[in-house]
Amino acid sequence: MIYADNAATTKMSDAAIQAMLTQMQKNWGNPSSLYAHGQDAKEALETAREQIAAVIGAQPREILFTSGGSEADNQALRSAAALGKKRGKMHIVSTAFEHHAVLHTLAALQREGFSVTLLDVHENGVVVPAEVEAAIREDTCLVSVMFANNEIGTIQPIREIGAICRKRGVLFHTDAVQAIGHVPVNTAEDNIDLLSASAHKFHGPKGVGFLWAKRGVPLASLIEGGAQERGKRAGTENVPGIAAMAAALTEANAKMAENAAHLTAMRDRLIAGLQEIPHSALNGDARNRLPGNVNFCFEGIEGESLLLLLDDRGICASSGSACTSGSLDPSHVLLAIGRVHDVAHGSLRLSLGEDITEGDVDYLVRSVREVVTYLRSFSPIWRDLTAGRKPFIL
Amino acid sequence: MIYADNAATTKMSDAAIQAMLTQMQKNWGNPSSLYAHGQDAKEALETAREQIAAVIGAQPREILFTSGGSEADNQALRSAAALGKKRGKMHIVSTAFEHHAVLHTLAALQREGFSVTLLDVHENGVVVPAEVEAAIREDTCLVSVMFANNEIGTIQPIREIGAICRKRGVLFHTDAVQAIGHVPVNTAEDNIDLLSASAHKFHGPKGVGFLWAKRGVPLASLIEGGAQERGKRAGTENVPGIAAMAAALTEANAKMAENAAHLTAMRDRLIAGLQEIPHSALNGDARNRLPGNVNFCFEGIEGESLLLLLDDRGICASSGSACTSGSLDPSHVLLAIGRVHDVAHGSLRLSLGEDITEGDVDYLVRSVREVVTYLRSFSPIWRDLTAGRKPFIL
Repeated sequence: MIYADNAATTKMSDAAIQAMLTQMQKNWGNPSSLYAHGQDAKEALETAREQIAAVIGAQPREILFTSGGSEADNQALRSAAALGKKRGKMHIVSTAFEHHAVLHTLAALQREGFSVTLLDVHENGVVVPAEVEAAIREDTCLVSVMFANNEIGTIQPIREIGAICRKRGVLFHTDAVQAIGHVPVNTAEDNIDLLSASAHKFHGPKGVGFLWAKRGVPLASLIEGGAQERGKRAGTENVPGIAAMAAALTEANAKMAENAAHLTAMRDRLIAGLQEIPHSALNGDARNRLPGNVNFCFEGIEGESLLLLLDDRGICASSGSACTSGSLDPSHVLLAIGRVHDVAHGSLRLSLGEDITEGDVDYLVRSVREVVTYLRSFSPIWRDLTAGRKPFIL
Repeated sequence: MIYADNAATTKMSDAAIQAMLTQMQKNWGNPSSLYAHGQDAKEALETAREQIAAVIGAQPREILFTSGGSEADNQALRSAAALGKKRGKMHIVSTAFEHHAVLHTLAALQREGFSVTLLDVHENGVVVPAEVEAAIREDTCLVSVMFANNEIGTIQPIREIGAICRKRGVLFHTDAVQAIGHVPVNTAEDNIDLLSASAHKFHGPKGVGFLWAKRGVPLASLIEGGAQERGKRAGTENVPGIAAMAAALTEANAKMAENAAHLTAMRDRLIAGLQEIPHSALNGDARNRLPGNVNFCFEGIEGESLLLLLDDRGICASSGSACTSGSLDPSHVLLAIGRVHDVAHGSLRLSLGEDITEGDVDYLVRSVREVVTYLRSFSPIWRDLTAGRKPFIL
């Protein structure tokens, strides 16, 4: 099996599994308990908080543990919105290609009276900082721009956007779910106020993530109850999951430069190979993207058929976000970068893992080429094209 | 170590850890992915849903996986409240001794315009069904009564309360976090509409739980985003945690009668032993309580000192809920059953595990007696008492 869907989820690292097992088998007390067995769990919890804070250049007390990236996104946006509402500022700036955890929360806030400006992300899938600045109004309470897109992998000019927000006195949130552990993220240098992350995207466990909120940024609770997490996130802390997340992130961070160099080389080899397929196009900027992300459109085919035939060849890939895989609608990300419906339907995301080899990449290229050729052989859209319709992708 | 704080958290069973490891090491795909590796995870997810549904007499599609009991409580209450608001019914009936995940959500709903009636739970810690009926108004949208109390372990007349709610056309939620896996819970027979559960209270993992909602009861989302869990709970499903929860619950259910018989015998032996201590009193009904729950007040001492000295003797115990252990306020549960402040401060909860032995129980009795005697030897409250003040506990 070649697993090329690391943007959907990753395999847990041995270090993460080991950290989890230690907590589950030996140190399984409730961290709120007074006795030593509970306080040992509390210590593991706080050690994990310190490890994670160290990786992102933050203070431990600024880290709030959540059940994952979606919860962190929801809480970040709701917190900034609650503060904005109190101050009479009910406008939010974001982008058209955010993850649905952001877009759907924004839609809910709109129903509650907020107004939202979604910025264009252009053909290359990169937000223009000057356009963020132009969109900020007197009543803007929040700018939310993802660090790297989950489908096309493009990395956003976070530091520049953050500097603009700071200058204008507007909170800045970034959904860094795809970036953390893969590219350098430093909350202080990047001028961020709120940041969301998910462990299972960097070889940590599912069901755990964190929200970082700069000191002084007040958080609203999504889940009311016990006094855990400084009263901002009720529920017994998932210490095994949190310790495993810290172990995975520490390891990913230590190996980041090495992994990124290898993945970038493999990514570029894969892009070069797939570009040889006629009427294919890379989605998103070729350079300014996550080391392991490749996303193509192939005119004249359906992405779903492509995935199923690749699965027959032992290749795990996706057409875009796993979170929307039940939907027949084309990707909102691909529409946002200007792909027409027909072309957006023929998309393929290959998100590589650190153990990918040149041989794997060559097998991926060969397999995709053969499957695309096969599918086009009975595609009505392809027939139109060969009968003289001007192709969308030249 | 004698771990007598199973109401705070439990040790994961070997079956649960094994289920988790299998998912983490072999079947770690994203269940939303189309390829076989993802669909295998999807199958594990749906198998877990079936296993859990079978235990509580429900349909699999009625089970929604959450990050734990607190999230399930929040979502249950918010869902019923949203429906009530739509219908112009903004009154909720609950009890004074619910878990804070319920009480604090109710407080948030009150700030949003709902009115809340909190029922008396009387000296024995048991709600009177006729009082539920009397509290229901024309504008009541929800009754929420916990299945078993987390501090004093008293089991509520859920079936009778459910029948009243059904007759009056009011939704009925029960926080069954302490009950599931320990006493029989059957959603159909017990006339329940919404039920919350948490895996780590029945030897499953932390960070996972579920909300059961009877078919036709519409749920509101707490976490917006992807289309997971029928669009009612966004975020990649924590398949390893969910599979482990199902394994733990299946095992707890299979051994329930045997465990309950043993625990009840041990509980009653412990109660009998502790009642020998002068000016001590059992909190909550002596019979109508969870098999493993013992909760006492000892006049003239501080619960915290008692816990620390028991910890020195290798005993893990608590004064009440772990979720509020940082607080100096006396337990709202003990106040609700009529304990005065001074007495409520001297509380001890011992929640036994299935492996407890007679020898352990006798060690617990001896240790508590010695520590209470020692603490009273320099307690000013105790001095007042011996100097002639009438004791609160005879």
